[in-house]
Amino acid sequence: MKIQRYKHDSPYSYTLGATLTYEMLKCSPELVTKVYLSSSLNFTDGINQMIEMCSKNKIQVITSDKAFHILSPKENCFVIGEFRKKHSQLHHANHIVLVEPSNAGNLGTIIRTAAGFQINDIAIIRPAVDVHDPKTIRASMGAIFHMNIQYFDTIEEYCNQYPDNIKYAFMLKASHSICNIVLREPFSLIFGNEATGLPNNFVDFCDSVVIKHSKDIDSLNLTVAAGIAMYEFTKKEFAN
Amino acid sequence: MKIQRYKHDSPYSYTLGATLTYEMLKCSPELVTKVYLSSSLNFTDGINQMIEMCSKNKIQVITSDKAFHILSPKENCFVIGEFRKKHSQLHHANHIVLVEPSNAGNLGTIIRTAAGFQINDIAIIRPAVDVHDPKTIRASMGAIFHMNIQYFDTIEEYCNQYPDNIKYAFMLKASHSICNIVLREPFSLIFGNEATGLPNNFVDFCDSVVIKHSKDIDSLNLTVAAGIAMYEFTKKEFAN
Repeated sequence: MKIQRYKHDSPYSYTLGATLTYEMLKCSPELVTKVYLSSSLNFTDGINQMIEMCSKNKIQVITSDKAFHILSPKENCFVIGEFRKKHSQLHHANHIVLVEPSNAGNLGTIIRTAAGFQINDIAIIRPAVDVHDPKTIRASMGAIFHMNIQYFDTIEEYCNQYPDNIKYAFMLKASHSICNIVLREPFSLIFGNEATGLPNNFVDFCDSVVIKHSKDIDSLNLTVAAGIAMYEFTKKEFAN
Repeated sequence: MKIQRYKHDSPYSYTLGATLTYEMLKCSPELVTKVYLSSSLNFTDGINQMIEMCSKNKIQVITSDKAFHILSPKENCFVIGEFRKKHSQLHHANHIVLVEPSNAGNLGTIIRTAAGFQINDIAIIRPAVDVHDPKTIRASMGAIFHMNIQYFDTIEEYCNQYPDNIKYAFMLKASHSICNIVLREPFSLIFGNEATGLPNNFVDFCDSVVIKHSKDIDSLNLTVAAGIAMYEFTKKEFAN
């Protein structure tokens, strides 16, 4: 089969790098369709173990430098995993909701943080970046294979499906400081687009929450704000 | 004078973009040496105000598309500010200490967060990324112009200069969870390199602190971990 650059409408995506590919083989071997090795690859114990996992799961291992030229032209990358994209559904009660996220790296970092704080379900409101973009996969450091991620066309669609979730909207013009919030479950922690934040009307159907900061900045970075919120909402689970 | 791509040893650096250049003109007009405008620039009220600030501060404004080809070839950028690099000294009691940070974007995001939580002093232990790299400046969203940032050759040099600071080292093998920490001032919040974290021997002269997370990830992203730590250590100031 012809190797093609990643496209949003392709049924396959790629893990660029050995560690990431190994993480996928551990978590979701059933999704993996091929593993490409560069001819410059150094066969360490870890690599041999990975090849053994492929053999056990009947996954084809192909040495092809062409795959690296096409899929990872700029990167220092010697192993690529190809996998079937999986479209999952929200499964647990607590959710992260990202409204129109636009940056693949940010999305991956938020996924990594959410997996770290065991909020394993993310709703994404379109228009939005592609969760299967290799840049997102890479920034998630493989955490994406632990997550349930579901797209919705509008916030209304999400709210109709989860009417009982307590919806906390993180925005600058908010009624509550995160330090004083009374945490109720099941919760939805809702964050806006990197540049524009959440529309003002979210206060109408959410508890609006602000992470207060000095006037020296306009806002916190989205991944940092989401990280602080997830930490604050889950810290009683991780305190000791 | 010939326009040259940014180099670490150049006495000048650049703000890529109108908002960033405007922020610099507001905070540190004395550093600004030139402002370049693209011939495709749209003259809004904000831009006219910026040009007025330049005129008031006797800063040369030059329309030159060449500057954009050289300094910002890939970006959607119509204003560039040139400024004299300023080497500052730590000034306040509480510090962020970054040990061997390697990513310009991460450094900028940490600077933005630190300005947001009013920890305006950052010590950087070499080898480290260049704080004046235009990528750092851009990721800081201009917050860098509110900060005191000083480089040290070793952590010992920093510790000798600030023997009375309570040193909190953020690492995975740590004695204390951040949730239970007793905060004492003046503090130094110490973070390691993106890939390797802090060396184990930091427990010998620091209070080691961990932000606990699930086993689904190896570690939190550096900018997220630093954001959570800064939030937790300053939240009593920002609670209400």
